[in-house]
Amino acid sequence: MNMANTVTVTIIPYFPEPILSLSRTLIKERAPMKPALLAVLLPVLTLNAADLTGTWHLVLIRFGEEFAPARIELKSDGSKVTGTLNELKIEGTSEGDTVKLTATRPNGKPFGVLDGRVTGDTMSGTVTQGDDHFNWKATRLRPSERPAQTHTFEPVKFHRVFSGAIEPALRLQPGDTVSTWAVDAGGTDPKGVRRSLGGNPQTGPFYIEGALPGDTISVKFNRIRLNRDSAGSGDSIVPSALTPGYFKNAKTDDNFNSEWKLDRQSGYGMLAKPTERLKNFRVKLNPMLGCVAVAPPANQSFRTGYPGSFGGNMDYNGLREGVTVYLPVYVPGALLFVGDGHAAQGDGELNGDALETSMDIEFTVNLIRGRSTQAPRMENDEWIMASGIANSLPEALQQATTELVRWLERDYKLSPNEAAIVAGTSIRYDIAEVVDPLVHIVAKLPKEVLAPLKP
Amino acid sequence: MNMANTVTVTIIPYFPEPILSLSRTLIKERAPMKPALLAVLLPVLTLNAADLTGTWHLVLIRFGEEFAPARIELKSDGSKVTGTLNELKIEGTSEGDTVKLTATRPNGKPFGVLDGRVTGDTMSGTVTQGDDHFNWKATRLRPSERPAQTHTFEPVKFHRVFSGAIEPALRLQPGDTVSTWAVDAGGTDPKGVRRSLGGNPQTGPFYIEGALPGDTISVKFNRIRLNRDSAGSGDSIVPSALTPGYFKNAKTDDNFNSEWKLDRQSGYGMLAKPTERLKNFRVKLNPMLGCVAVAPPANQSFRTGYPGSFGGNMDYNGLREGVTVYLPVYVPGALLFVGDGHAAQGDGELNGDALETSMDIEFTVNLIRGRSTQAPRMENDEWIMASGIANSLPEALQQATTELVRWLERDYKLSPNEAAIVAGTSIRYDIAEVVDPLVHIVAKLPKEVLAPLKP
Amino acid sequence: MNMANTVTVTIIPYFPEPILSLSRTLIKERAPMKPALLAVLLPVLTLNAADLTGTWHLVLIRFGEEFAPARIELKSDGSKVTGTLNELKIEGTSEGDTVKLTATRPNGKPFGVLDGRVTGDTMSGTVTQGDDHFNWKATRLRPSERPAQTHTFEPVKFHRVFSGAIEPALRLQPGDTVSTWAVDAGGTDPKGVRRSLGGNPQTGPFYIEGALPGDTISVKFNRIRLNRDSAGSGDSIVPSALTPGYFKNAKTDDNFNSEWKLDRQSGYGMLAKPTERLKNFRVKLNPMLGCVAVAPPANQSFRTGYPGSFGGNMDYNGLREGVTVYLPVYVPGALLFVGDGHAAQGDGELNGDALETSMDIEFTVNLIRGRSTQAPRMENDEWIMASGIANSLPEALQQATTELVRWLERDYKLSPNEAAIVAGTSIRYDIAEVVDPLVHIVAKLPKEVLAPLKP
Amino acid sequence: MNMANTVTVTIIPYFPEPILSLSRTLIKERAPMKPALLAVLLPVLTLNAADLTGTWHLVLIRFGEEFAPARIELKSDGSKVTGTLNELKIEGTSEGDTVKLTATRPNGKPFGVLDGRVTGDTMSGTVTQGDDHFNWKATRLRPSERPAQTHTFEPVKFHRVFSGAIEPALRLQPGDTVSTWAVDAGGTDPKGVRRSLGGNPQTGPFYIEGALPGDTISVKFNRIRLNRDSAGSGDSIVPSALTPGYFKNAKTDDNFNSEWKLDRQSGYGMLAKPTERLKNFRVKLNPMLGCVAVAPPANQSFRTGYPGSFGGNMDYNGLREGVTVYLPVYVPGALLFVGDGHAAQGDGELNGDALETSMDIEFTVNLIRGRSTQAPRMENDEWIMASGIANSLPEALQQATTELVRWLERDYKLSPNEAAIVAGTSIRYDIAEVVDPLVHIVAKLPKEVLAPLKP
Repeated sequence: MNMANTVTVTIIPYFPEPILSLSRTLIKERAPMKPALLAVLLPVLTLNAADLTGTWHLVLIRFGEEFAPARIELKSDGSKVTGTLNELKIEGTSEGDTVKLTATRPNGKPFGVLDGRVTGDTMSGTVTQGDDHFNWKATRLRPSERPAQTHTFEPVKFHRVFSGAIEPALRLQPGDTVSTWAVDAGGTDPKGVRRSLGGNPQTGPFYIEGALPGDTISVKFNRIRLNRDSAGSGDSIVPSALTPGYFKNAKTDDNFNSEWKLDRQSGYGMLAKPTERLKNFRVKLNPMLGCVAVAPPANQSFRTGYPGSFGGNMDYNGLREGVTVYLPVYVPGALLFVGDGHAAQGDGELNGDALETSMDIEFTVNLIRGRSTQAPRMENDEWIMASGIANSLPEALQQATTELVRWLERDYKLSPNEAAIVAGTSIRYDIAEVVDPLVHIVAKLPKEVLAPLKP
Repeated sequence: MNMANTVTVTIIPYFPEPILSLSRTLIKERAPMKPALLAVLLPVLTLNAADLTGTWHLVLIRFGEEFAPARIELKSDGSKVTGTLNELKIEGTSEGDTVKLTATRPNGKPFGVLDGRVTGDTMSGTVTQGDDHFNWKATRLRPSERPAQTHTFEPVKFHRVFSGAIEPALRLQPGDTVSTWAVDAGGTDPKGVRRSLGGNPQTGPFYIEGALPGDTISVKFNRIRLNRDSAGSGDSIVPSALTPGYFKNAKTDDNFNSEWKLDRQSGYGMLAKPTERLKNFRVKLNPMLGCVAVAPPANQSFRTGYPGSFGGNMDYNGLREGVTVYLPVYVPGALLFVGDGHAAQGDGELNGDALETSMDIEFTVNLIRGRSTQAPRMENDEWIMASGIANSLPEALQQATTELVRWLERDYKLSPNEAAIVAGTSIRYDIAEVVDPLVHIVAKLPKEVLAPLKP
Repeated sequence: MNMANTVTVTIIPYFPEPILSLSRTLIKERAPMKPALLAVLLPVLTLNAADLTGTWHLVLIRFGEEFAPARIELKSDGSKVTGTLNELKIEGTSEGDTVKLTATRPNGKPFGVLDGRVTGDTMSGTVTQGDDHFNWKATRLRPSERPAQTHTFEPVKFHRVFSGAIEPALRLQPGDTVSTWAVDAGGTDPKGVRRSLGGNPQTGPFYIEGALPGDTISVKFNRIRLNRDSAGSGDSIVPSALTPGYFKNAKTDDNFNSEWKLDRQSGYGMLAKPTERLKNFRVKLNPMLGCVAVAPPANQSFRTGYPGSFGGNMDYNGLREGVTVYLPVYVPGALLFVGDGHAAQGDGELNGDALETSMDIEFTVNLIRGRSTQAPRMENDEWIMASGIANSLPEALQQATTELVRWLERDYKLSPNEAAIVAGTSIRYDIAEVVDPLVHIVAKLPKEVLAPLKP
Repeated sequence: MNMANTVTVTIIPYFPEPILSLSRTLIKERAPMKPALLAVLLPVLTLNAADLTGTWHLVLIRFGEEFAPARIELKSDGSKVTGTLNELKIEGTSEGDTVKLTATRPNGKPFGVLDGRVTGDTMSGTVTQGDDHFNWKATRLRPSERPAQTHTFEPVKFHRVFSGAIEPALRLQPGDTVSTWAVDAGGTDPKGVRRSLGGNPQTGPFYIEGALPGDTISVKFNRIRLNRDSAGSGDSIVPSALTPGYFKNAKTDDNFNSEWKLDRQSGYGMLAKPTERLKNFRVKLNPMLGCVAVAPPANQSFRTGYPGSFGGNMDYNGLREGVTVYLPVYVPGALLFVGDGHAAQGDGELNGDALETSMDIEFTVNLIRGRSTQAPRMENDEWIMASGIANSLPEALQQATTELVRWLERDYKLSPNEAAIVAGTSIRYDIAEVVDPLVHIVAKLPKEVLAPLKP
């Protein structure tokens, strides 16, 4: 059985379980989805009905496993309760400490009934879906009342997998700003001290209060700045970017020295010990982050060399100071990771390692509730940018283009033809990297072209 | 920074850390790899030298992280110690409870020195690599003396990620046989009872005593048999197998009923409620396992829809009764998972779900010490088979062909030209699946052709 | 401007010119396609109306170029004329030597009007499409009345491009059989005499009387037999089938001798001067043709190393004696080429050259009028087979699967879901070749499975 | 048999026939390439030796086919003759009207002997290669003595295939300039008059005197300017740039009007009849040519929708006024075609048609003798650019990167490591088009970065 398509299906709640939409047949067999008996008994007494008004963090429980975390928004009016569970409509009643919530699909078909009991800011009980029964619980989310603040975060532990199982290093409110730094890809800090094993060790993770699957977080990078004067890079081009014949016959020198001096004053880098032919070669520094990630879905852990719909090792030379990154939320709190500073990188990250160095980072997080993106998006003063992170360049181009077109359709209210007219004349592609376990293409449109289209 | 190439490089110990070979520059900067001072002091007293003879399970420790588990084989001769650490040569001395082991690369260059103390079946101490220092420990492996046995294993918990963090369900000695069963991809057991959330829930994991990274396990499937009379399948072809134009315009019916009856007597399956046109359609049953896996490397967890170098959701219709599967070991004990029974499946698993059903399984495990494979291999009476599991069909074909050619070079002692003559005339490819997060092609050669070539 | 999609759109007549459907906008601008004035004047005299009944070969003429050859079937009833032009409906009148034919699209919209004069078996005149005018002419096709016959054809000239500009070597009636032979890929004949420059020189082309674009020809290979005792092959695997690392490091010997002896008695081949390790290696002979082609569309010429929708260098080891090949017709007469005999070939033709040898060939041609295929199809006693010949393996798999599914939908009257059920359980893929300018995958279904589905 | 690799191998003369290098085995069998008997007889009389000094156009002749056109440079010194045949070294003698030229490979091995007779500016005779014999002839090329001139060329006939079989429309000397214009992709001229059937009809071809296979032509575009106020474009994105799901579900309107007004004054284009949402949308005009081509190799003809190593329908928005295009020469005279003007085009040419319009064009041609490129290269004030035109994006990226790296190695004398350092930090990719029969990626480097590296 495949689950190939589930990765990107994150907008709607995967209720009652992630594979529901993929295993239609199997589910049918076991859970015939008959219209539930929805007879809502008339309440005799409406005294004491708990006020459920507010935002709740729901999880389902079955076979000992919690799954499908989602946000419920409820409003009590006496014993009557209304609300939403992502795109589902909720109607129900609360009597004393009991609650009964009926969820209906956008197409009007019944989805299921949640029966249970309320105790202060928690509720729990039984889900009934046709003949099928399992458990649920919910906790009320109390919005923070403190103003946004700036945290100076000194990292101590560095992480070599993107995973929702890692204990958060710091909890943030939407609107908060974090000033921190990251070791280089090999684990060395701004002072040249080795602090971790290598492989893109990450700073974080940061827990964003209130973030739930179905949301998007935004991370505005106020500062991405060099904090030391050295970097190291690869010194030969990966085979995925060369013809087999060239790769076979190229005579590369294993002892080539590819250490770099970074002149932060002039903004240029040069080889520390250049060959004769490269002694005048210098490259404009363009500090960027190779990695910005949230925890991946479905209890997975990927080493920090992976990019994906969760961001990760995106290795895009456009991810620099001033950019805002949008990432989908897969676990409560999102769990934000940052790391893998590059002082400069050509398109594709052809040498496997760019100019790898430690980095000072300052970012501000925010939360877009109830709207999800299927892949990372970015934005700066000049461009809107959609990432296509996929198995191959053709698929990455398809994903990037489609995400950008969806952006035009949703936020600019264009039809598919209108979006085609805009994209066909004005789209630009960047090939971010061709060296990681998945490749990355960015599709982008200039804000100047889009400005007259603002709805 | 990328780590694209590390996944499959598992034969040699990734010492002192997985990215060493990839981040040459970075490592150089911090750990200049100068020839270590290897002055081995003359022992004054050789009394009491511990006998280190035997097999040890080594791990390195740095920044609070254990890494690079590997096997050391040692032989004591008085105070003199010789041995191997995978492909490295070990020479050293033991004096009382102290030990000093010098490791040398195959090319004669120094690799590092392990100093430490011995306490019975454990040793620990400091690794010195040039100017660099970190820790190590080792535990002596005592081979089992009990004869191979057959376990009847009744699964209780089913796992939806392939992960080395899962507690083993049963510990096996090489040579042991396990008789067990697996729920179907949706979590339903042979009696039709739902036992787990869906997505290929796995039986296991089984810990193979003595298995260490650098080894290969073999799993001979003595039985893969149907244990119920129903299955469910997908009912439309995935877009990766169709032209965009056909996919766009095909009028598929969302209510198509794709439940199957399995007639174990006749060995055929038919739709339970067929359409008029398919009422005479029947398909020969060919029970197979979609998933056979070990835990993946680098502390990663992949949902059980993933295939990879660790096996996993390979969805190959040749993985049936009588086949032996070879998998590389990434974590101590390997951690073997099995699941995702298919009653029948065409090439490619075009409908996403094959004829998904529960399955009775009996297998025998064995251990091939000190030899690794870069991807799953299989073998039955008729064929030797090498898996190419990769991002795209072209890459999968490259990997499968290369693995098969390497098999010819190593086991049949053929030169590249000779292997080309054999493969060019006799290779056959099976397209196993095109629906999972990675695709899978099998390259195979008939044993009949190879028989006259046996060295 | 691209014409990417035109290659395979061959079923309906590309009238009035090949790019019409792609350049909607441009065409609109210049040729507004307004409903033509179709006032059919009442004939004053119906005397002498020419009898147009029969099959006509139509061409359009514009800017000095003839294009869009197609078949018109007409029936005269007094001055009234009815008929078809591929999928268009024709209605009109003939008066004396004048003719006026109005063509209507399947959706009822006007397509255009052909006015002209008749002289015996030829007609010509003006096409009116909206405001647009150009010329047409037509010739009556007289069906042969001679019985099918067998030609023994001794090739003299060999062709190294597939092209419609080559003078036919022999004209065949549908039903005719040809007994001939082909030089090997290097141009050497059965007696070992060099007869042509190399690169798959072809025998033919054969003109099939009555074949017009929109038709399909079938070529049943009654005999594909070896006619000499030697062959030559490549001796190393192409880089497209190997990982870059293996390809870079493999030590191949440029002087490896890959000449073969073919033992037609035993049916096995062996290296003529084998290495020690391969002295017992032998391969079952399986004579096949690398090339079967028609002339390509749009006045193109491809060297005989190309495969395509026109067949060509398909290099499929299933194209052997007993198979029937179906090819679309792109030029009047189709122009059939055959060549590139292989004594044996593994999947993929990994060494670039298979066991290249000359070959005796006998085939019978037939014509399927008014039905086209978008790519080669094949059939033998056991399988129906659809070719996917495309730029990459993923696209080739998509095309092959789609063609096979269309076969099920058209000839077996299955719905998309029903076709998915059949293909998902029973499809098999062969990777024909990965070494030519386009790659080739064959999707196939066993006739045994399909037999109960015959409509 | 495949010829997959021959397309791009054009630097050295493919002598004695194109497939020589691919069919080593076959050739060996028939033409054992034994060292020829090279006994050069002492001349008895040296009277009357013809002066062969000069440049000759050589062709080989075998089986009635002329092939392998190439340039021979000779110098007579009495009866002694020396010279070169591309990379081969020539030594020989002329006596009276006889000539004997021995050609030697760069590695010192004998290549063959050309015996023959001289008559003024022509020579012809027999080639001896080992035991093999065939014919040759050569014509002396007389360099023009007229100064470079500017031709105003009014096209009359437009060509819809790239082919060496088309009669040249104009013969140019290297250094000449041509001022001309092209119809749009549908065949309409600057005055809105339809002049050709559609599909990128080309202006030309132009014969460059002295151009022979093994050379490169440069075409500097002095002017690429709009010459009318209208264009037409596609109005929906091709499926190769969209995910299958989006493509399936997008509701496109077949009647969307995508005619454009081009405001040459302001330099912007806008829809002629925009939808409400796009009434303020405008796009900066960037006139470019979709097609610049030479005739393809091996007697092939490709419709003018094809790109390839010969240039062709490259659809790159960087091919605009000021750019110099370098193309390899495959046939004597090269045969240059230009056409397919685009007023503006986004990356990828996503809508299949860009803003298609007619165009004024002025270019200057030059000839780089004896040096070839494997694919189109371009250059302007800011960038050096190498084209990767291939079956898929991964292959196009490989080719483009490799060509750019070769450019650095040849013209900047960098080693592979040095080229990697430059490319890894500074390379930029443009995805030119993903809609034609082959896709096109351009790899480029800023001249500013390269300036300090000039040898």
